[in-house]
Amino acid sequence: MSKHELPIVDACSTQVMREPLTAEQAAELAKAFKAIGDPVRLRLLSLIASHAGGEACVCDLTGAFELSGPTISHHLKVLREAGLITGDRRGTWIYYQARPEALKLLAESLLPAQAVTA
Amino acid sequence: MSKHELPIVDACSTQVMREPLTAEQAAELAKAFKAIGDPVRLRLLSLIASHAGGEACVCDLTGAFELSGPTISHHLKVLREAGLITGDRRGTWIYYQARPEALKLLAESLLPAQAVTA
Repeated sequence: MSKHELPIVDACSTQVMREPLTAEQAAELAKAFKAIGDPVRLRLLSLIASHAGGEACVCDLTGAFELSGPTISHHLKVLREAGLITGDRRGTWIYYQARPEALKLLAESLLPAQAVTA
Repeated sequence: MSKHELPIVDACSTQVMREPLTAEQAAELAKAFKAIGDPVRLRLLSLIASHAGGEACVCDLTGAFELSGPTISHHLKVLREAGLITGDRRGTWIYYQARPEALKLLAESLLPAQAVTA
């Protein structure tokens, strides 16, 4: 799968609580949960999602961590490949945005049917 | 923290999308996401949650995997320590139940405020 595809969108209607997941459904969902199963990546996602204007570049993010730029970039790549953020190159920097629709699908997978309204 | 405590309950009101997570909030949430960031554990959680009567013992679960009993038990321990399932020993077996309230808190952490109704 290309790293530019957004696999989590395909998980639409998968629900952990309603019926046993197939191995394929579980592999796809687990990839996204694993991406946010790391404190640095979860904080990066949160920083991006809550940043002014809804986007952030690496230059906005490195100050929050005692980590090198390449390490931050690696974590951003994992989030991007899991379909949880997108990156948009403008000039020198890549600007990252969260994908609320992907996070919503992940959230819905953990809830009983029809629990999410917005 | 004792493995019998349920850490995820303390994450109430943590929201990834609303404001930057603190390192402590991220560590706690990431532990739970990491627990379900594995296809076998996600399938185990799903099998337990959707099993007749809302509970399942290891004897109900091993048939779905080409894994040894001890390996299944290890994964169940990870889910239990993350607060996502509980275990109740009755006679020979431990019966596992999912914790919908913990899964709901995890789901809410990924959604905008007030998006979950049930």
